Amino acid sequence: MKVTGIIVEYNPLHNGHLYHLQQTKQVTNCDYVVAVMSGNFVQRGEPAIVNKWARAEAALNAGVDLVIELPVIYSISSAENFAYGAISILNKLNIIDSICFGSESGDIEPLFKIAQILAEEPKEYKNLLRKFLKQGLPYPKAREFALNNYFKDTNNLLQTSNNILGVEYLKALIKLNSNIKPYTIKRIKNNYNDINITSNIASATSIRHNFDNYDLIKTTIPEFSFEIIQREKQLGKGPVNLNNLADLIFYKIRSLTANELSKIHDISEGLENKIKYAAEESSTIEELLNLALSKRYTKTRLQRILLYILLDITKEVYLQTIKEINYIRILAANSKGRKLLKYVKDKALVDIPIIINPSKYDKELLSLDIKATDIYVLGYNNPKYKIAVQDLKNKPILL
Amino acid sequence: MKVTGIIVEYNPLHNGHLYHLQQTKQVTNCDYVVAVMSGNFVQRGEPAIVNKWARAEAALNAGVDLVIELPVIYSISSAENFAYGAISILNKLNIIDSICFGSESGDIEPLFKIAQILAEEPKEYKNLLRKFLKQGLPYPKAREFALNNYFKDTNNLLQTSNNILGVEYLKALIKLNSNIKPYTIKRIKNNYNDINITSNIASATSIRHNFDNYDLIKTTIPEFSFEIIQREKQLGKGPVNLNNLADLIFYKIRSLTANELSKIHDISEGLENKIKYAAEESSTIEELLNLALSKRYTKTRLQRILLYILLDITKEVYLQTIKEINYIRILAANSKGRKLLKYVKDKALVDIPIIINPSKYDKELLSLDIKATDIYVLGYNNPKYKIAVQDLKNKPILL
Repeated sequence: MKVTGIIVEYNPLHNGHLYHLQQTKQVTNCDYVVAVMSGNFVQRGEPAIVNKWARAEAALNAGVDLVIELPVIYSISSAENFAYGAISILNKLNIIDSICFGSESGDIEPLFKIAQILAEEPKEYKNLLRKFLKQGLPYPKAREFALNNYFKDTNNLLQTSNNILGVEYLKALIKLNSNIKPYTIKRIKNNYNDINITSNIASATSIRHNFDNYDLIKTTIPEFSFEIIQREKQLGKGPVNLNNLADLIFYKIRSLTANELSKIHDISEGLENKIKYAAEESSTIEELLNLALSKRYTKTRLQRILLYILLDITKEVYLQTIKEINYIRILAANSKGRKLLKYVKDKALVDIPIIINPSKYDKELLSLDIKATDIYVLGYNNPKYKIAVQDLKNKPILL
Repeated sequence: MKVTGIIVEYNPLHNGHLYHLQQTKQVTNCDYVVAVMSGNFVQRGEPAIVNKWARAEAALNAGVDLVIELPVIYSISSAENFAYGAISILNKLNIIDSICFGSESGDIEPLFKIAQILAEEPKEYKNLLRKFLKQGLPYPKAREFALNNYFKDTNNLLQTSNNILGVEYLKALIKLNSNIKPYTIKRIKNNYNDINITSNIASATSIRHNFDNYDLIKTTIPEFSFEIIQREKQLGKGPVNLNNLADLIFYKIRSLTANELSKIHDISEGLENKIKYAAEESSTIEELLNLALSKRYTKTRLQRILLYILLDITKEVYLQTIKEINYIRILAANSKGRKLLKYVKDKALVDIPIIINPSKYDKELLSLDIKATDIYVLGYNNPKYKIAVQDLKNKPILL
C-alpha cells in the first residue's frame, strides 16, 4: 500500500493542478493520494474564492482520496510555517510514503541541498546570512545571497515561489526527521504570478483575475471544477475575495488603537501607525495596501497581516496555536480515503484526534478555524448562507 | 435677547418638525433657536438615515440658528440619559431662557408633576415602585403603575413616547436646578411609531419606512430637506440603516466571546449568550433581533445594545463618558447663530470647550464621536466617502 501526500490550495482547482495530480500518481506509483488543503483562507493572505467544502469536493473529483484541512494559523502564514504545518500533518499520519510537489526547477537534488543548509544552518552559512542582513537586505533576499555565496551558485533557484515552497517542504521533512520520500515535478506553461491567461494551463492567480470571463476560464479548469464554482456562485456563496471583507477589515482597524494593533502577529516597527493611518485615509483594500506598502512589508505579507487583524491573531494567539499540529480535520474522502482512515484508526497510528464529523466537543480544538469560517461566510452575497458555526454543522464530503 | 432650546434628531427633518419649530418660535416668542441634535446614531438604536452634517444643514434651512451635536454616548442611550445629556448642554450654554418640546399631552403641568416625583422620589412613590418591581414588571411599566397609584390617576400620560421623553427633559431641568423655562406643544396628526403615511404630517418612522417611495414622502418633507436627502443619496452617502452595518455587527459579535460580550454596557443576566447564539444562527438584523427579543429586552433596547457592541461601549467606557458633558460641538450655524456663539465666547459664559473647527487637539475629547463616524461611513455605498476621521476634517455648516 503506497500513499502519497500532496499540499494544495485548489483556489480554484485548474488544469495545472490536474496535471500535477496525474504526474504525482505516475512518478510515485502510489495507490492513494492524501491532500492537505488550505481552508477558507489561503497563503497569499486572501479568502479562498470558494469555500473549503466546495474545493475539497473538487479535489475528490480530480482523484484525491482524502482531503485534510490545513488549519488557518498555518494556511495564512509564511512559506516556512505553511510548509511545516502541512508536512507535520502528513508525517503524523504515519502512512505517507512520499510527497510530490510542483516546482519551477523540477529537480529534487539541488532543492534538497539548499533545504539541508537551511535546516542545519552551518556556521559558514550563518555568517554569510548575518553579513547580508547587516547590509539592510530583507530576510528572503539576504538568505538567497547567503546561499548563493555558500554554494558559489544556486542558479537562481530561490527566485521563484514554488521552488521556495518546495525547499520549505524539504526543510520541514528534515527537521521532523521524516521518512517520507520527496519528489518534485516541473511546473509547465505558466508562472505562479501571471495574471494573463495564455494557455489551457494557467496560474490560479490569472484564473481568479479573470473570474468573470467564464468563456476564458472554462478552458483552464476541468469541467467538474467549473461546475462546482458555478454552483457556488449561483447559490450566492462566492466568489469571495478580500474586497468582500473590506468593510470588516476597515471596521476592525478603525476600532483598534495603534497600541492594540501592535499586539497583532507580525506587526512591529511602527507598522501599526502606518496601517492605522492607511485605514483612515482610504476605503478600499487596494488603497489601504498602497498606503502601507514598503520594502519590508510586501503586498502578500501585508494581506496576511490584514487577515491576522481580521481574525484577531495576536502575537500571543499565534505563539499558542502555531506550536504544533494537535488535530487532523477531514474535509472530504472517497471510498478509498475512508478505507485509509479506517486503517489508520484500526492500527492506532495517529496520536492526535482525527476529526471527521466534528461535534461540540471539538469546539475548543477547532476554535480558530470555526471563527475563520464564521467571518469568511460574511463575504457571501446570500444571507441564507451567512449563518455561523458551519465548521461544526457541515458534514465532510464523502464520495 | 430670548433664546430657546430644542432637542431634535431630524431623522429626517419633516413637516412635523417644521410645525414644531414654528410653534416653538410663536409660543416662546424667542429671538434665537438653538437645537441639540443627535449625531450619526440616534436614540432608537440606529444609524441616522443621512449623516449629521446633512441633517444640521436641513436644521438651518428650517430656521434653527445654531446646531449642537448631542454626543453619541447620550444619543444612543435611554430616554433618561438622552434627555439629561441634551438638557445639560442647553443649561451649560447659560443663554437659554426656555425649551419647547412636542408631546402627545400638550400640557406642561401634569408632565411637570410627574417629573418632580421622579426627580425627588418621595418615600411613598419609592415603596410603590419597589412593590411593582417585585411583582416582576419591567422598569418602565413598574414606574407607570407606581405613578398611577401615587397620583390616583395619570391619564395614561406615560404610555406615549414623547410624553415620556418630555418628562425626562423636565426631570433633567429639575435635577440640574436649571432656570430654563419649559414649554410643550401638542404633536398633531401622527403617532411616533406609525409606519404608514396618512397625511402631510407623518412620523419619521413612517417616512424612513417608505423611504424609497419618493412621491409619497415628498408630501411629508419640506422641499429643502427632500433635496438634501436626494443629494446625499445621489452621492452614495445614504440612506444608511442598521442593515448597512449588519455584517460589521455580526463580525463583531462572532469575534467576541460571551464573556467579552458581557462587559458591554447594558448586557447582563445571560443576554450575552442569547446574543451570541442569535448572531451565530442568523445573518440579518431582523432575524438577530427576533432571536434575542424578550419582555425585558425590547427591540429598541436591543438595537441600542447592538450599537454598544459595534462601538465597543463597555460598561467601563459608558461610566467614564456618560459622567458629564465636557465639550460643546457645533455642527452648524447661520449668521444669528454665529453672533450667539460670539456672545457666549466674549462673555465667557461656558466653562467647557466649544468646538467649532475641531483640530487634532480635540481628538481625545471627541474620540467616541470620531469613532462613531468612522464606523457610520462604512455604511455608505460610495467608497469615496468612507474615509475616516471626518469629524476632524469636516467644517461646520455655516449659512
